[in-house]
Amino acid sequence: MNCAIIVAAGRSTRMGADRDKLFLEVAGQPLVAHTWRRFDRAGCIDEIVLVVREDKQATLAQLAGRFGFEKRHRYVIGGAERQDSVWNGLAALSGEVEIVAIQDAARPCTSERLIAATIAAARETGAAVAAQPVTDTIKESADGLTVLRTVDRSRLWSVQTPQTFRVEVIRRALQEVRRRGLTVTDDTAACELIEQPVRLVVGDEPNPKVTRPGDIPYIESLLKFTGT
Amino acid sequence: MNCAIIVAAGRSTRMGADRDKLFLEVAGQPLVAHTWRRFDRAGCIDEIVLVVREDKQATLAQLAGRFGFEKRHRYVIGGAERQDSVWNGLAALSGEVEIVAIQDAARPCTSERLIAATIAAARETGAAVAAQPVTDTIKESADGLTVLRTVDRSRLWSVQTPQTFRVEVIRRALQEVRRRGLTVTDDTAACELIEQPVRLVVGDEPNPKVTRPGDIPYIESLLKFTGT
Repeated sequence: MNCAIIVAAGRSTRMGADRDKLFLEVAGQPLVAHTWRRFDRAGCIDEIVLVVREDKQATLAQLAGRFGFEKRHRYVIGGAERQDSVWNGLAALSGEVEIVAIQDAARPCTSERLIAATIAAARETGAAVAAQPVTDTIKESADGLTVLRTVDRSRLWSVQTPQTFRVEVIRRALQEVRRRGLTVTDDTAACELIEQPVRLVVGDEPNPKVTRPGDIPYIESLLKFTGT
Repeated sequence: MNCAIIVAAGRSTRMGADRDKLFLEVAGQPLVAHTWRRFDRAGCIDEIVLVVREDKQATLAQLAGRFGFEKRHRYVIGGAERQDSVWNGLAALSGEVEIVAIQDAARPCTSERLIAATIAAARETGAAVAAQPVTDTIKESADGLTVLRTVDRSRLWSVQTPQTFRVEVIRRALQEVRRRGLTVTDDTAACELIEQPVRLVVGDEPNPKVTRPGDIPYIESLLKFTGT
């Protein structure tokens, strides 16, 4: 069985004060509703765990009704850091779940094809991540003021979500993170700690995340183009 | 005196066969016209050199008439590589030019503020480049299949154009590239060869480049938002 964990418990610190970006209306619907719909409709996903802040649970339940999301889902309260939220989500999985796809709630354009491709890769190798080759010219700077050198971008990949795992792999990886008292920025970084190889899965459609207000027009244009 | 070199001689290989992206209509006008207008209107730029493919010169001259570009400009024929095109553009500068801002023709949202900031930094240090901190999680992979490690993105900057220089600096840098028979992906990489420090200039507005067809909706939304 395949489950999705949609992580919707962030603080949106880069969006400006007091705005929870997940409930911003984008192409006529709250951002989180777009993301949820992608997983609600994906044939490769059997159930959904939404990791939320305690005060948002009722709002999300209303969304499910308003937009007719039908796939089995449940709510779990998030933790202090992203990795704690994922940890709580993993604890809520039923015993039959073999593969878990972990998704940023603020990434609303993820295609079913990409979700399915990460699931297939994770089933094979244990861990997989949606990724894009870096196409910009990248410079390294130690002080943020002067260029140190040009980085070989042919080795660089920008990673997205879903980050998809065999359940026992991501549990073991996050346990190691907790044991060492570390903070990791993404779930595949946890896999590096236990030397679990992570497969790159290259999507062929844009799959951006809303991080700053300036990201909205682009994502709106994508959602209108691909259908909401 | 400050001059802009707009490099419009590329082959658009990533846009699909037989499409010169610079003449694609974006927000109602050819892409290159948007870029040209930014420099035509920028008070900090005194003249413009357009580096073009031989068969496109007449088309560009028509654009100047159609859109009423008034700033002094001239056309120069491009070379085999981007660095050869820039070299040809530099050869066409008049003797009074002190600072040259080199711009991708396919980057139509560059603001006057950003152009002016790179000019000020290049006047001070010799070389400057428009840049953005990398915000995505970046992984390194040797084979494009499996993740090797998570890269420390706090040291990484994605560079754009304008790349702006004191004229004698970029001439000397590109001379060194030619002497060594190298190919560089951008003009500031040439500066690294002569140990010329390059200042990062962080813009506060999006400044994307059209590389693939999928980039168009985003850039269109930006152009409509900022005014064309």
